[in-house]
Amino acid sequence: MPVVLKEFRVSTRGFTDIIDVTDKVRAALSESGIKSGLATVCVAGSTAGISTIEYESGVVRDLKDAIERIAPSNIPYNHDMRWGDGNGFSHVRAALVGSSFCVPFDSGHLVLGTWQQIVLLDFDNRPRDRRVFVQIVGE
Amino acid sequence: MPVVLKEFRVSTRGFTDIIDVTDKVRAALSESGIKSGLATVCVAGSTAGISTIEYESGVVRDLKDAIERIAPSNIPYNHDMRWGDGNGFSHVRAALVGSSFCVPFDSGHLVLGTWQQIVLLDFDNRPRDRRVFVQIVGE
Amino acid sequence: MPVVLKEFRVSTRGFTDIIDVTDKVRAALSESGIKSGLATVCVAGSTAGISTIEYESGVVRDLKDAIERIAPSNIPYNHDMRWGDGNGFSHVRAALVGSSFCVPFDSGHLVLGTWQQIVLLDFDNRPRDRRVFVQIVGE
Repeated sequence: MPVVLKEFRVSTRGFTDIIDVTDKVRAALSESGIKSGLATVCVAGSTAGISTIEYESGVVRDLKDAIERIAPSNIPYNHDMRWGDGNGFSHVRAALVGSSFCVPFDSGHLVLGTWQQIVLLDFDNRPRDRRVFVQIVGE
Repeated sequence: MPVVLKEFRVSTRGFTDIIDVTDKVRAALSESGIKSGLATVCVAGSTAGISTIEYESGVVRDLKDAIERIAPSNIPYNHDMRWGDGNGFSHVRAALVGSSFCVPFDSGHLVLGTWQQIVLLDFDNRPRDRRVFVQIVGE
Repeated sequence: MPVVLKEFRVSTRGFTDIIDVTDKVRAALSESGIKSGLATVCVAGSTAGISTIEYESGVVRDLKDAIERIAPSNIPYNHDMRWGDGNGFSHVRAALVGSSFCVPFDSGHLVLGTWQQIVLLDFDNRPRDRRVFVQIVGE
């Protein structure tokens, strides 16, 4: 059973920028030549996350608002007091959402709902060029 | 190393219905014939999630209450304003909890604590018939 | 493709003790002899979780504070009323953070950011001796 690691880049605006990466994951699957198996999508770094949503502007807005309530950007963070980065809220958000997501695929198709997309969430407090990895194990 | 994809159905009542699916995951493992490997449990759709809890009525109630505080059902959601679905809160909850969960198994036994069960959480605002997948890679 | 399951123990102080286990995960990888594949890190039990953070004392403190806000320890929990354990908040926190984390590795190196560590979060209300598992599938 082969193991294939693919990588792609995503330019983000930061500040909980939520970006649909489903097509890029599908392209990685296709390039791998593996038909059935498990795809792990992950982002390198401690201020970004991976999840799934129905990717439409209403849900995108609602999720950003919810994350702002859960880990507000306008309260003091110890990380900022120590390092002056100003992105303490970004670190907390990333730890809560999680930086990897696993999804099976079968006959080349991701096991997702019709209205379910894989998203990169960039929580940092500035634009970033993110490395997203898709690792495929299967047969 | 084989890859096996199993599926089962769960009827839910929605509104953060939390259902123990551990036995169904174990049955899928057993049917697969694979003895050691990784099981990925996932639910298709953008208004449900998978996690683990000690499945007793107190924890179930506490988790429902916590999720209601984190993403309240009684505040406005942009998704609802755009689409009228009334399940904006469901989408946010699902994105935060996550739609898949990975658990190793060894000699046919899931690596879980004694009081730890795998649960489907249906966040939608109506009863649903859910497709839950168990994908098994191993040997 | 082989499957290897490794285990190590971590003594915690409970109360959202957050412990860097990256080196122990790396040691498990190294012992497995597998060069490329997927590592699943999981903790047995329903009052602990696994995630990633930049492991420095500011972020550790910020994440503890955020989790206290999300699932406060000073409100009533049904679990405690039923069982008297006093760790209702621990169960809720664990379910929200998640008990497993998957990370690819390639040529023996974990696919993580430079400042990204794998952490065990022990949410229980007492010190615990935790069993953490690293399962490796690959080639």
